[in-house]
Amino acid sequence: MADCNALPLIILSEKFAKLPGIGMKTAQKLAYYVMKMDEQEAEDLANAIIDAKKTVHSCSCCQNLTEFEICPICSDKSRDTSVICVVESPKDVSAFERTREYNGLYHVLHGLLSPMEGITPEFIRVKELLARLGQGNIKEIIMATNPTVEGDVTARYIATLINPLGIKVSRIASGLPVGGALEYADEVTLYKALENRNEMK
Amino acid sequence: MADCNALPLIILSEKFAKLPGIGMKTAQKLAYYVMKMDEQEAEDLANAIIDAKKTVHSCSCCQNLTEFEICPICSDKSRDTSVICVVESPKDVSAFERTREYNGLYHVLHGLLSPMEGITPEFIRVKELLARLGQGNIKEIIMATNPTVEGDVTARYIATLINPLGIKVSRIASGLPVGGALEYADEVTLYKALENRNEMK
Repeated sequence: MADCNALPLIILSEKFAKLPGIGMKTAQKLAYYVMKMDEQEAEDLANAIIDAKKTVHSCSCCQNLTEFEICPICSDKSRDTSVICVVESPKDVSAFERTREYNGLYHVLHGLLSPMEGITPEFIRVKELLARLGQGNIKEIIMATNPTVEGDVTARYIATLINPLGIKVSRIASGLPVGGALEYADEVTLYKALENRNEMK
Repeated sequence: MADCNALPLIILSEKFAKLPGIGMKTAQKLAYYVMKMDEQEAEDLANAIIDAKKTVHSCSCCQNLTEFEICPICSDKSRDTSVICVVESPKDVSAFERTREYNGLYHVLHGLLSPMEGITPEFIRVKELLARLGQGNIKEIIMATNPTVEGDVTARYIATLINPLGIKVSRIASGLPVGGALEYADEVTLYKALENRNEMK
């Protein structure tokens, strides 16, 4: 289609459209918006992209994203270093931190096992997790991957690797979300809620 | 909230969240996605933003966005220079060009009059339109602003300015969208469709 607009705008729209969840229409809207920004604002956005890409990398210990060699959580002396909570991605770390209830360490896998898609253990940060078990005094690994097929498979796989080492492996509970209603829960969630029931004393 | 993630990522998320239609959640998702891009891709995106911002400006004639002094439509010798279609924004030009039916010129107002929001004629490109009327041989101005209150007010205002100059001013038709169904049309559209009915011969 011969678009009557400027080529740099078309190129920018195409770049925006490559971002997840952004279709061609939204990408065009964003490109037009950039034209309305003042020059400094547009430059700030561009620099933020380059800056994040250049300075942020995986923490050499827990693999969470950080601009430091060792991330603030791993280097925080007040945290309980005997527990590691294993998650799929950096945003899961943010989610747990928001609860303000967990004081242990994390390990970010950067993916989940998915044999169907060819994602085998070497594609996620499993060996980095195993390497951490040798150091220090780790007592428990909490598998906090999502309660999906891939999340469960990954949790089970890692449990199989770690169990023989004499370290406790646990899995986060599945059940009804707090504030949720029974009638809207799907069957599997309801079954899990029943199965994981706790005694009331 | 003490976010456990890297500061450059938080900054990038905040920049993304300033874009229209992008909330904080989506902005974070985009920032994480940038981390997954390879370095060249991220640089290309950043450069596309700067490049579009630096090279694209308004055509000195029709005010549409272009990287040239005079846009390709204004400098196209095969187009009918006696008709100017007046639209609100550059994306409206794209919309008309997609029909492949219009062969005249355009004028982009970059906004609509809105006395409530303080947008008076000096904030939109009205005087640039009037300046064009003196040059060449313009026979018709088609007011193609949206059929909204602001679009109608703007069309009426410009018609009042141009009518005394002896140049024909027309307004695009309102009515049922092609392929639309009567039962889903709102009352005003239906009334307009009735009012603008055409004789069938």
